[in-house]
Amino acid sequence: MGKKKKKKKECVCSSLLNVFHLALSLQVTVFEQEHFQGKCLEFTSECCNIQECGLDNIRSIRVESGAWVGFEHHDFQGQQFILERGEYPHWDSYSGSLSYHVERLMSLRPIYCSHQSSRMIIFEKENFMGRSVELCDDYPSLQGMGWMMPEVGSMHVQCGAFVCYQFPGYRGQQYIMECERHSGDYQHWRNWGSHCQTPQIQSIRRIQH
Amino acid sequence: MGKKKKKKKECVCSSLLNVFHLALSLQVTVFEQEHFQGKCLEFTSECCNIQECGLDNIRSIRVESGAWVGFEHHDFQGQQFILERGEYPHWDSYSGSLSYHVERLMSLRPIYCSHQSSRMIIFEKENFMGRSVELCDDYPSLQGMGWMMPEVGSMHVQCGAFVCYQFPGYRGQQYIMECERHSGDYQHWRNWGSHCQTPQIQSIRRIQH
Repeated sequence: MGKKKKKKKECVCSSLLNVFHLALSLQVTVFEQEHFQGKCLEFTSECCNIQECGLDNIRSIRVESGAWVGFEHHDFQGQQFILERGEYPHWDSYSGSLSYHVERLMSLRPIYCSHQSSRMIIFEKENFMGRSVELCDDYPSLQGMGWMMPEVGSMHVQCGAFVCYQFPGYRGQQYIMECERHSGDYQHWRNWGSHCQTPQIQSIRRIQH
Repeated sequence: MGKKKKKKKECVCSSLLNVFHLALSLQVTVFEQEHFQGKCLEFTSECCNIQECGLDNIRSIRVESGAWVGFEHHDFQGQQFILERGEYPHWDSYSGSLSYHVERLMSLRPIYCSHQSSRMIIFEKENFMGRSVELCDDYPSLQGMGWMMPEVGSMHVQCGAFVCYQFPGYRGQQYIMECERHSGDYQHWRNWGSHCQTPQIQSIRRIQH
């Protein structure tokens, strides 16, 4: 029931966002084989299932413009991978987590970053409770900037978009947080992504075009 | 011969730098087993061979203060891993490269960041030739900020310290670049580290305490 509601919301967001994405001429080229070989496809907006587009899998990626997020499963489920402009010749160039071996991307979508600035609040406990700190920069170590624990309870993205990482130095599991999705509210670690299994977050950075 | 000269320079630097490190009360705790188990040691300055200190290996790390760099081999050789304040429970939490599986750290040293600001110049070709750009911020995608190729020919660190990464989004092989080492000059990709096998660099960020 909750999932159904969430899915409906995603669809409404997507159709609205695609207008902006086309205007921004976002573009990514995905390849069926590593090192930019084999069948390839270009996208300027989201793809919810790469197999329905005629590719078995995505094994290498060239991001021409914009910021994108790739997903382990179709319909934007499973592990998330931030994809910014540049070349990703094989799965370990876009994955940041070695503990959970994923060699495929099945769906991808652009990240909507209309704001010049990004701002979010992190909370000590779930449901936006406990100690809080406002973030508007990049933080390779949350503990280094004064957040004393290796976990975050909940988050609210006020504007822009961020990538949150399990470990310091932008490593480990990645979670894309956007003000345009879920109204920017991430009240529990289970909302950070369908692959999320821990509240551990130790580095956070802005997503910028 | 070249190696010998370099080693001598390292030693001179180290003795000078340790004074600053102690003043800054840098501290890291390393553990022989994953998840902060087994024999452990605290360091406030460099360790060139963990086995000479009584540990077989380093499998988990807790950085209490400062920024450190861990190395695959003793004497600061092999793959480099930036270690900032926070918890690293297993090798895949500090490694960023999945293509080259390293499950050990044999030496580590603090990174000297005396400057409030960090500034470096990247060059298109080796020996500081060709097109150049000055960097003084964090760049998750060099191509996104206008550097049109996925490689860098040479670099000069004017002040502070940086981490350079093989892939966008701070992924892949890591190279620590410091103004206090090699006079900040990295004239060829072979100088970026003993593990470096390619000039490919697609993201760069500052190291800050």
